[in-house]
Amino acid sequence: MDPNVDLEDLGSQQLPDGQTLPIPPVILAELGNEPGKPTVCFYGHLDVQPATQADGWLTDPYTLTEVDGKLYGRGATDNKGPVLAWINAMSAFRALEEDLPVNIKVIIEGMEEAGSVALEELVKREKDRFFSSVDYIVISDNLWLSQRRPALIYGTRGNSYFTVEVTCRDQDFHSGTFGGILHEPMADLVALLGSLTDSAGHILIPGIYDDVAPLTEEEKELYGAIDLDLEEYRNSSRVKKFLFNTKEEILMHLWRYPSLSIHGIEGAFDEPGTKTVIPGRVIGKFSIRLVPHMNTSVVEKQVQQHLQYIFSQRNSSNQMDVSMVLGLHPWIADIKDHQYLAAKRAIKTVFGTEPDMIRDGSTIPIAKIFQDIIQKSVLMLPLGAVDDGEHSQNEKINRWNYIEGSKLFAAFFLEVAQLHE
Amino acid sequence: MDPNVDLEDLGSQQLPDGQTLPIPPVILAELGNEPGKPTVCFYGHLDVQPATQADGWLTDPYTLTEVDGKLYGRGATDNKGPVLAWINAMSAFRALEEDLPVNIKVIIEGMEEAGSVALEELVKREKDRFFSSVDYIVISDNLWLSQRRPALIYGTRGNSYFTVEVTCRDQDFHSGTFGGILHEPMADLVALLGSLTDSAGHILIPGIYDDVAPLTEEEKELYGAIDLDLEEYRNSSRVKKFLFNTKEEILMHLWRYPSLSIHGIEGAFDEPGTKTVIPGRVIGKFSIRLVPHMNTSVVEKQVQQHLQYIFSQRNSSNQMDVSMVLGLHPWIADIKDHQYLAAKRAIKTVFGTEPDMIRDGSTIPIAKIFQDIIQKSVLMLPLGAVDDGEHSQNEKINRWNYIEGSKLFAAFFLEVAQLHE
Repeated sequence: MDPNVDLEDLGSQQLPDGQTLPIPPVILAELGNEPGKPTVCFYGHLDVQPATQADGWLTDPYTLTEVDGKLYGRGATDNKGPVLAWINAMSAFRALEEDLPVNIKVIIEGMEEAGSVALEELVKREKDRFFSSVDYIVISDNLWLSQRRPALIYGTRGNSYFTVEVTCRDQDFHSGTFGGILHEPMADLVALLGSLTDSAGHILIPGIYDDVAPLTEEEKELYGAIDLDLEEYRNSSRVKKFLFNTKEEILMHLWRYPSLSIHGIEGAFDEPGTKTVIPGRVIGKFSIRLVPHMNTSVVEKQVQQHLQYIFSQRNSSNQMDVSMVLGLHPWIADIKDHQYLAAKRAIKTVFGTEPDMIRDGSTIPIAKIFQDIIQKSVLMLPLGAVDDGEHSQNEKINRWNYIEGSKLFAAFFLEVAQLHE
Repeated sequence: MDPNVDLEDLGSQQLPDGQTLPIPPVILAELGNEPGKPTVCFYGHLDVQPATQADGWLTDPYTLTEVDGKLYGRGATDNKGPVLAWINAMSAFRALEEDLPVNIKVIIEGMEEAGSVALEELVKREKDRFFSSVDYIVISDNLWLSQRRPALIYGTRGNSYFTVEVTCRDQDFHSGTFGGILHEPMADLVALLGSLTDSAGHILIPGIYDDVAPLTEEEKELYGAIDLDLEEYRNSSRVKKFLFNTKEEILMHLWRYPSLSIHGIEGAFDEPGTKTVIPGRVIGKFSIRLVPHMNTSVVEKQVQQHLQYIFSQRNSSNQMDVSMVLGLHPWIADIKDHQYLAAKRAIKTVFGTEPDMIRDGSTIPIAKIFQDIIQKSVLMLPLGAVDDGEHSQNEKINRWNYIEGSKLFAAFFLEVAQLHE
């Protein structure tokens, strides 16, 4: 049985500076095509975040270096280690001359860290070809919540990113010669941004919580079982005090409730020192992390209406413009899906424990893209430990995680084949 | 009678990059020292703002060029033209072989545009020597409020510049992995800044208006007489609508009432594009233009107390620090001083009209420095028209203003000598 491997051309992209560059091709591979077996598709990526030794790496970031059972190198955990572990699992069956219990498909891209440019178009194009026989999609591009206990990830938050621009004129003013007679754009903007949340982090936009999925008893129980030492978490985050005091509240507000963060202001005085300027045009930036079953277009309307109302109350002569510049839906899986049960059983076999059932508070668009376009179950099955340092200096994957992770994927093939029947 | 001219060494200054540069010396000159005559001291500066033709100059900024009765060149109105006019006025008496009716002192610096570095120390040092015999100080470093009608300036606003820093930790957070469980510094800061003014520009800091000088009938009448076309002013400012609708209200809120402007935020996301960051430490910057009889140390206390109160209401676990990084007092002259009456009479003689009695909403520290240290009357007697474009491209002084201004200074010498007796 030989694999079939294709390189899919994705065309080229134009950079902001006008330069045109080819997009790295996507690898589409398949191994086995037997009608009786389920087809499992693995998604991975081989591109990495930038790294130079000068950033504070203790080893050459581009030479994999083992120190005390840790394999250091850029991409070790994000995402080359998991890709190799998947290949190891497939190879194991061949080495043992055993029949693979599943048909395998693999999609590997080289643009994940740059926003998976053109991937959605490719998935749409291949929906009825490469993906037509796929039953399950597996992504292994996150981390566990702990150092030793494996996890399954069943949801990620979406994100609606907004700009709110307030303009008096295109030029700045001198605060000595104009201070006192203007509707100052910064005063308007600060009031608008200040109307978004209360001091307890609760979002004040009317209706924003209407579509948030109610908390069931079943879901509630998941949080209690999770392995998280709150005090250790707080210390390693270097935060004096969180908004909430219990593990359950903390996790729920990171995963299953929306949050609103103000990122900054463009166009005002942002440098060190003093400058007596009245900025003439300022752009506030904030975003809302969305959870099931919030919808980006409903959220956009709610934010627009709220800010229009607050602005109208000010009787300002300035102009206000609100835009949603990014709208990414949340993703949630049904943890009763066959492949979630299969993954749990595989974890039990390899690690001898139940997994933490967790979500990820940040936004990983590919899960939702696969779910929406291919309409099959997506599983996030991470291999790396919480301290792997993805995107940071001295990124690593533990030798133990890498080897047990390879076993986990092989065990998963067996379990998913069994449950699929 | 020969002038006595000295160059006063001011030592050297260290630039932010560590470089040490000598400060240009200050010229201290005197002409005449007769006990029966009043001594008038003129302050001027010869340094200028940067200028290159590429900024949009229609002529070489460093070659004085006359076009249609306008003398274009960097420094033409700020402040070389007025300095020359003063010299012209002195020269006129010599050319006519007439006795100067006043003793003259002149102080000319070369660091005004850089904040008059070391000038205050010099004035203190020379208080009982060079300045001991001075009766009146004249500054001609502003502009009229109109194109044709001369003005006397009798006040400038002070400035208290504040930073308010809110810190959760020294590093930023990712809004996906921390959004929802933090007291976010930007939310605190936006609430703090939003508590400073209402939407009508009124300052909400308790007690801030307590020391503002009450408006007298006499002062009120000054505003009505001033030559200002509000519609033209609004159009040339390119502002859709001011906070007030009458000339009197506009001028009072620029000159005799305090104003508060928010300048910007340091440490947040300030670039174009989107970034999903929760800034860990942010510094808000705002300043209050002060008017008689507000005091910087009282204002500092009021701002501190107000922000502490607002912050305490939020129960935030972040750290807040408020600092007044600059405190400059307002300056106001007694317009019944001899030299104000002398200047009015001189204007009547040369221009055939009463002057606009105006103030300047911005802060000119030297007037207050002279008033406080030498304790003599300070007069601001501008020569340039409102459209001279100081600090801008195509700065100019009108030939007419320059010549009539020279006459005005000579007439002022005669009037001040007469009133002083």
